[in-house]
Amino acid sequence: MSHSRNVYLDMKTLEEARAILFSTFKSAGMPASETLPVSDAIGRVLAEAVTARLSSPSFHAAAMDGFAVLAETTFGVSESRPQKLILGQDAFAVNTGHVLPENTDAVIMIEHVHAVGDGLIQIEAPVFPWQNVRRMGEDIVATELLFPQNHKITPYSIGALISGGVLSVKVRKKPHVLIIPTGSELVDCRTTPIESLKPGQVLESNATVLSALVEAWGGRPQRGDMIRDDLKTLTDALQNACEGDADIVLTVGGSSAGSEDFSRAAIQELGEVLVHGVTMMPGKPVIMGVIHNKPVFGIPGYPVSAIVAFEQLAGPLIAMMLGQPEPQRPVATVEPIRKIPSKAGLEEFLRVQLGNVNGRIVAIPLPRGAGCITTLTKADGIIRIPRHSEGIMENEPVQAELLRPLSSINNTVVVVGSHDNTLDVLSDMISARYPGMVLSSSHVGSMGGLMAIRKGVCHIAGSHLLNTEDGSYNLSYIRKFLPDTPVKRVQLVFRDQGLMVASGNPKHIQGIEDLSRKDIRFINRQTGSGTRILLDYRLNQLHMNSEDIAGYDTDEFTHMAVAAAVLSGTADAGLGISAAAGALNLDFIPVVTEQYDLIIPEIFFETENIQRLLNVIRSDMFKEKVNRLGGYHTERTGEVLES
Amino acid sequence: MSHSRNVYLDMKTLEEARAILFSTFKSAGMPASETLPVSDAIGRVLAEAVTARLSSPSFHAAAMDGFAVLAETTFGVSESRPQKLILGQDAFAVNTGHVLPENTDAVIMIEHVHAVGDGLIQIEAPVFPWQNVRRMGEDIVATELLFPQNHKITPYSIGALISGGVLSVKVRKKPHVLIIPTGSELVDCRTTPIESLKPGQVLESNATVLSALVEAWGGRPQRGDMIRDDLKTLTDALQNACEGDADIVLTVGGSSAGSEDFSRAAIQELGEVLVHGVTMMPGKPVIMGVIHNKPVFGIPGYPVSAIVAFEQLAGPLIAMMLGQPEPQRPVATVEPIRKIPSKAGLEEFLRVQLGNVNGRIVAIPLPRGAGCITTLTKADGIIRIPRHSEGIMENEPVQAELLRPLSSINNTVVVVGSHDNTLDVLSDMISARYPGMVLSSSHVGSMGGLMAIRKGVCHIAGSHLLNTEDGSYNLSYIRKFLPDTPVKRVQLVFRDQGLMVASGNPKHIQGIEDLSRKDIRFINRQTGSGTRILLDYRLNQLHMNSEDIAGYDTDEFTHMAVAAAVLSGTADAGLGISAAAGALNLDFIPVVTEQYDLIIPEIFFETENIQRLLNVIRSDMFKEKVNRLGGYHTERTGEVLES
Repeated sequence: MSHSRNVYLDMKTLEEARAILFSTFKSAGMPASETLPVSDAIGRVLAEAVTARLSSPSFHAAAMDGFAVLAETTFGVSESRPQKLILGQDAFAVNTGHVLPENTDAVIMIEHVHAVGDGLIQIEAPVFPWQNVRRMGEDIVATELLFPQNHKITPYSIGALISGGVLSVKVRKKPHVLIIPTGSELVDCRTTPIESLKPGQVLESNATVLSALVEAWGGRPQRGDMIRDDLKTLTDALQNACEGDADIVLTVGGSSAGSEDFSRAAIQELGEVLVHGVTMMPGKPVIMGVIHNKPVFGIPGYPVSAIVAFEQLAGPLIAMMLGQPEPQRPVATVEPIRKIPSKAGLEEFLRVQLGNVNGRIVAIPLPRGAGCITTLTKADGIIRIPRHSEGIMENEPVQAELLRPLSSINNTVVVVGSHDNTLDVLSDMISARYPGMVLSSSHVGSMGGLMAIRKGVCHIAGSHLLNTEDGSYNLSYIRKFLPDTPVKRVQLVFRDQGLMVASGNPKHIQGIEDLSRKDIRFINRQTGSGTRILLDYRLNQLHMNSEDIAGYDTDEFTHMAVAAAVLSGTADAGLGISAAAGALNLDFIPVVTEQYDLIIPEIFFETENIQRLLNVIRSDMFKEKVNRLGGYHTERTGEVLES
Repeated sequence: MSHSRNVYLDMKTLEEARAILFSTFKSAGMPASETLPVSDAIGRVLAEAVTARLSSPSFHAAAMDGFAVLAETTFGVSESRPQKLILGQDAFAVNTGHVLPENTDAVIMIEHVHAVGDGLIQIEAPVFPWQNVRRMGEDIVATELLFPQNHKITPYSIGALISGGVLSVKVRKKPHVLIIPTGSELVDCRTTPIESLKPGQVLESNATVLSALVEAWGGRPQRGDMIRDDLKTLTDALQNACEGDADIVLTVGGSSAGSEDFSRAAIQELGEVLVHGVTMMPGKPVIMGVIHNKPVFGIPGYPVSAIVAFEQLAGPLIAMMLGQPEPQRPVATVEPIRKIPSKAGLEEFLRVQLGNVNGRIVAIPLPRGAGCITTLTKADGIIRIPRHSEGIMENEPVQAELLRPLSSINNTVVVVGSHDNTLDVLSDMISARYPGMVLSSSHVGSMGGLMAIRKGVCHIAGSHLLNTEDGSYNLSYIRKFLPDTPVKRVQLVFRDQGLMVASGNPKHIQGIEDLSRKDIRFINRQTGSGTRILLDYRLNQLHMNSEDIAGYDTDEFTHMAVAAAVLSGTADAGLGISAAAGALNLDFIPVVTEQYDLIIPEIFFETENIQRLLNVIRSDMFKEKVNRLGGYHTERTGEVLES
């Protein structure tokens, strides 16, 4: 179809793109320098080597309270051969930090001295030269190198600088980075109340995130005006930007190959496109260009793409300009809990949740959509799957870059299984009571939780699996699927499951029976979820056929996602918990009250973190907060059940 | 001797002191909260859980340029059964990001569509529901938990907050920390020109360092006036401080047991001393107290003690107030290159330089004086030697807390051996040319350098060992001491060695012969240093006896330290290099021109970092800078010599 579109003529690998970037702008040189008082220079980079102007100490100083003497006059003294010293002639009273009087080179500690009358002291042991003395220059000798250029000033550095008499330093100016958000759909979140958002409008967030990242990388961000999708407007804005005093220009959005993507054309009109398209994911549609010798980036608009493109290209350029090595995240060896296929030809930045389960760091892949910022905010680490790889096998040890310190990952309780809103309450209360302890939950359905326990990749499984023969929950499944894993079972809540329907119930849905009506579109939960088992059980009881239910094969992974589908009108009904319906103001038609338990392997049960978690669950405050959600019953919450 | 002194009545271990601290102030509770726009909240801590106000996307959005359709109308379509769609009725043109028109649930990519005439398109493949669509709530569902309380906001968090419609957040106020420097010797470095410093006066640096640390730990520092050593003045200042709005008060200096140490008495007068003295080194004389329910610390005045006391006690209290876990430094397993004895009964924080030599991280202990801030600024890591330990054996693998990222330690060239000022020039130029590459040098004398090579604990040894039989340098020593280690030898410089004497040469020293004069006090270099070998060689040639030289047994480890001793009048003469004399404006009486080489094991010679270092050494700029120091000759600099 005829349509004005860009094409990625010649995608580069990330290594190629970086090589082009660094070689193109190497000659641009370092930014200018500025002189700052040392106290304002923390985190800044020295533009030149700094040498000491003063020695430290700048004089010989007593290191103890006592008496300064010339050490050689005390040689030979002992208990049997004590010696008297005349104050003001042989010995001089000094306190710690005092200047050593002339012609003395040692201090006798006050504890080792006896007063023996008018102006006389007696000693019973010798001192050696420089004993109890801080010698001039012991720490720093004037003129010595304190720090080479490109040293990044830390709080500790400040101490050495001041002690060396250096009170101001020449540091590199922060590279000035201008950020221009583009997109006709964007709305400035600082000026538009969210209530007035219209469908199709999007709160601009990338510019704020990128500004924060620019600062973190040592640059000085400036936010330009938002630009609508229009080639002329963008070209004019870029022209102004490149004639101004910015060191780097970022346009955000419109870097792809769509009909409303103008970044490439605008850069091409004013300068040169160096790279369009890098074989990485997210971040593929990034553009690198040069206008008036100035680096210009077309940063993709999807939030995770924007961050990856910045961190892999624009950030490292800032570091280069500051003479700094690129910051390296700490890494750890992790094991994915399931197979992760990946597209060969693209280097993938896969976001994962991490936790230490019985000595192994397990990695739970998060969704891969570049449009989902929560795949990064929920991530504890990033696994980089190389370009030539087609993925990672289950349990294959791989390196992950860590987004949280290892100590924090080691302090994480990994919950896998069915989703329930009370887990959010639990997470918040744990975070409040036990700073540093983290509850990380991953929603794969009840059966997924049990399988995770069997594989030894989680501390807790959340489960509400109904035994359709006797109406019991979880016990028969544990016996069947975890025969070799001793576990404890703790009841979290009873909860109401029912049909979530649009507010006011416009389609007059009364119960499960209505789901086979032709005018009803259902949204299901995934196979293996307790809610789906519950649905199938009810369908069976009612002699209904799943094939008669429109939407039975469309599924979501959480109650909230089902509720969102109903709210948006995508579906007319979904089975889920009352709390999810209540959260989005949907109507709720109760179907059954079910039991939701936590399944905990016995090897973890007595650990500090599990006991802390149980303390929270058993607290009145937890029960109160859960009851406030609605649709929950806490009379047996926290009880250890038969398992 | 009668003398007004404090005593450490009851020292606590660090664990005990921390337990007392945390339990005493736990009830003090969290600081109040404040509400900030999200863009100002980076690095701050959420005072309450944050839930999303908007879903993201807040509408079903096209994820591709193309045509929106109802997927089920395309089922069964194939190349052999193409289908025509009427624009505006069956299909609607959309671009990426556009709202999906009503009654559509999928987007056909523009590439897969043929225009077949007026208002008609043709497709040859089906789409499935939600294909190429970003569904409402795919990233965030309104009301879902975005972050629990105590979450620390990162740049990424900002993206999730704005996308979830959260534009301002309630964060914990930064704990307000008042810092009161004490000490009659102190001079405010911001107001006193260093030229006017008098002997006995010291530039105050702790308050600036502690302010920076308070900020790094999340607090808000305020610097109080400097207080002289006087109980009444200090008590008044503390009283004011504790009645004011500070959350934590630090007095700095005067926490020890000397006659001019008043912190303890002042705290006791106004409140209660909880702990005086912690069995750690540095930092032992720290005080913890409480006045009007407010935590007050007596921070010791030695710069390293001050930092350790802050980081082990006051900093963690700030973290607790913010509901944050204590930051943990990354650790690595390291091997000390020599035995490190330590005092049992004290937990020691030993500062070490680190480098990766042939796969092992070697640790070179730095001097241990708490008064030397450079022992911390030069350190790459800290080995904590437990209280019950009497030290660490050579090569015993121990954990070190890292002060630089492991990637930086792995990018460090470790030079051990004789000290020469040109190594500073080299370090600065390497840092400028190769960001991230570090030259770490440790001064143990030439022989110490060769031994380090033999033990495999350094990349390069700097050496100027004279063969007293044939006048050659280094070669015979290499053959004797490194028979099994193939090495390359690269000449760094020729340099002048001579006697450094006070400016104007007041004692009329002409040469080595004068050192036996009774009115001359000499300062020597340590055994094993090339300079000492040179001295002994000359003494031998001149038939002089070392016992006739006053000060022969007093030694220093570097040329600069010898120069400083002469400058301060401690010694009248020392043997050293011209550059050191020149740096401190001493007179210099040449004795000999000697050769200083770098000895490099062959296994390292071809590595990238060694080749980079040789590139620098062979550059004209290096030679120019070295020649500018004076007393150096660079005609063979960079040459590979026989070895």
